[in-house]
Amino acid sequence: MTTHLDATTAADVSVSAEELGVPAARRRSAVLEESIRKDPGRFRVLTGDRPTGRLHLGHYFGTLHNRVRLQELGVETMVVIADYQVLTDRDVADRLTEHVADLVLDYLAIGIDPDRSTIFAHSAIPALNQLLVPFLSLISVAELNRNPTVKEEISQSRQSSVSGLMFTYPVHQAADILFCKANLVPVGQDQLPHLEVTRTIARRFNRRYGDGGATLFPVPEALLSAAPLLLGTDGAKMSKSRGNAITLAASADETARLIRGAKTDPGRHITYEPATRPEVSSLVLLAALCLGRDPHLVAQDIGGRGAAALKSLVTEAVNEYLAPVRLRRTQLAEDRGYVRQVLRDGNERANAIAETTLDEARAAMSTAY
Amino acid sequence: MTTHLDATTAADVSVSAEELGVPAARRRSAVLEESIRKDPGRFRVLTGDRPTGRLHLGHYFGTLHNRVRLQELGVETMVVIADYQVLTDRDVADRLTEHVADLVLDYLAIGIDPDRSTIFAHSAIPALNQLLVPFLSLISVAELNRNPTVKEEISQSRQSSVSGLMFTYPVHQAADILFCKANLVPVGQDQLPHLEVTRTIARRFNRRYGDGGATLFPVPEALLSAAPLLLGTDGAKMSKSRGNAITLAASADETARLIRGAKTDPGRHITYEPATRPEVSSLVLLAALCLGRDPHLVAQDIGGRGAAALKSLVTEAVNEYLAPVRLRRTQLAEDRGYVRQVLRDGNERANAIAETTLDEARAAMSTAY
Repeated sequence: MTTHLDATTAADVSVSAEELGVPAARRRSAVLEESIRKDPGRFRVLTGDRPTGRLHLGHYFGTLHNRVRLQELGVETMVVIADYQVLTDRDVADRLTEHVADLVLDYLAIGIDPDRSTIFAHSAIPALNQLLVPFLSLISVAELNRNPTVKEEISQSRQSSVSGLMFTYPVHQAADILFCKANLVPVGQDQLPHLEVTRTIARRFNRRYGDGGATLFPVPEALLSAAPLLLGTDGAKMSKSRGNAITLAASADETARLIRGAKTDPGRHITYEPATRPEVSSLVLLAALCLGRDPHLVAQDIGGRGAAALKSLVTEAVNEYLAPVRLRRTQLAEDRGYVRQVLRDGNERANAIAETTLDEARAAMSTAY
Repeated sequence: MTTHLDATTAADVSVSAEELGVPAARRRSAVLEESIRKDPGRFRVLTGDRPTGRLHLGHYFGTLHNRVRLQELGVETMVVIADYQVLTDRDVADRLTEHVADLVLDYLAIGIDPDRSTIFAHSAIPALNQLLVPFLSLISVAELNRNPTVKEEISQSRQSSVSGLMFTYPVHQAADILFCKANLVPVGQDQLPHLEVTRTIARRFNRRYGDGGATLFPVPEALLSAAPLLLGTDGAKMSKSRGNAITLAASADETARLIRGAKTDPGRHITYEPATRPEVSSLVLLAALCLGRDPHLVAQDIGGRGAAALKSLVTEAVNEYLAPVRLRRTQLAEDRGYVRQVLRDGNERANAIAETTLDEARAAMSTAY
């Protein structure tokens, strides 16, 4: 659930890949991919986003694309709109209804199929939220303090600004994942520590309340996705709030304007060298992703024709690639009733699942009176 | 909700009454008592207990008696069985079903009338529990750290043993109180800081999401009850786990045996001096409470006849006082179906209230999609 966890990306740069267990997770993910191809019906995936605005190309190639791929492989996919996770950001919270509708529109436009995938809002599922309470009993304050995001937030902004919601965030995520017994969570490497909290809670619940080895919750596994490093048009991390991102919903003209203004470097000859030429390489990569080509070959083709030629290519590639998505989005946007119904149906399905799981948890915990 | 908050009693001894705001709360409580007598329909009370076993005389004279009094005055009373608050105590959690049934039996036996009061279990009300999530966004980690119970727990047992559940406990309590818009919470003075968290959350929610001055949540007030200081038969604080408490359900013989073994002091002449003769005075007080007499007069009557005569009097007084409660309890215990139905009806009523409040909260927060 990459974008659901966007906040961590900046926080975790000080933690090495080894510390995060990335090499092991990568090996395990390769095995999992093999299993998915053989027997997709064994898996249920939980992914999601925080409704902070329209999705952009960073989201698309980072996570959305992968979700559609898993759906098409036949994996059952649950997509949570983590609306309670944006409450502390007042600007975002004040436009929640709009943001949530935008998110559903984006999902449908890129090919999330509401007949095969379940799109639901966190706040619409009381039984899911209730699981938070017993889960909180299974994790200590010391363990929550070790969470890299919380640590970073505390060091950046003093503890007084860390809300109880942010502090307990990994536990909410455990509820999001475990209520539907998802056994697979696509994540970027930064999010491995968060998923570890969910795994810990699942294990502790099963041990504490499991009757004779019966396990209520599967211990979910991380499916590491190698998100390509796409920068914003200003060379910084692509982000909704910086206005440096090309949204899926942008018009072809807006897209052209944004790319025309993108930062490059003085080197006339275009190459693909992400480490030394991040801005140019990010543009090359974007074109390559849209064209389904190798970025080195894309760079080679431009060669000495320079940044202007590169930008033309990128604009054309992006606009062509997104044309069907944008068309679908425009059509869907005219039928708001349908969009609302998709979310309501998803909420209903998620509620049924959550109520079943909560009943099972109540029985296991001897709280079914 | 005195006993729901039992854990704090020991923790707060280092905090002075002035720091807790006790004098002001006491003055305000006198005004509130006056309002209750004039117009009981204006108030909704939330009280409750953690289901840790059978209730004893300490609970009875400390809080239960007061609940029945408020009910009889015509105040609508909600009684929460805070079953999620005992999860971290394994011995207790393993016998939850039994403890909850015992609690309901005790309530009915002492005169809580299920037609006028609502008895419900915290874990049975998902919409109540969901309120915890937005409430967590309205309080900071620093504020939660200032909670005296948490502070004490951390200093006593190292932070590693403080669970996320205990840390966020005052926020759960806010959900217990605010879901039903209770505007009155009977508390002992130790619990004033907890109620302050609820009051803060109510105010912040109303300010943050209130539309043009409309307030979703009343800011609840503390009704300070002067709980008499009854000690256990060993002279220590009366507690279920120490086996030094006379339960409401105890037989007359058990009661006699417990009181016969009660600690006294070598002074032959019986007096009522709580500060210097705590054990003897506690026995005197117990008799006085059961007889509805002044403890000084009770002591005077015994005078030089010593501890044996005192114990006989206490035994007789307690057994006579509790006889109708115990009779009702025995009769009710034979009709477990009825007891279960009382809880189910209460849960249903509480769920209806919680769902209405959650819908209102969703509308206020723009999360009604």
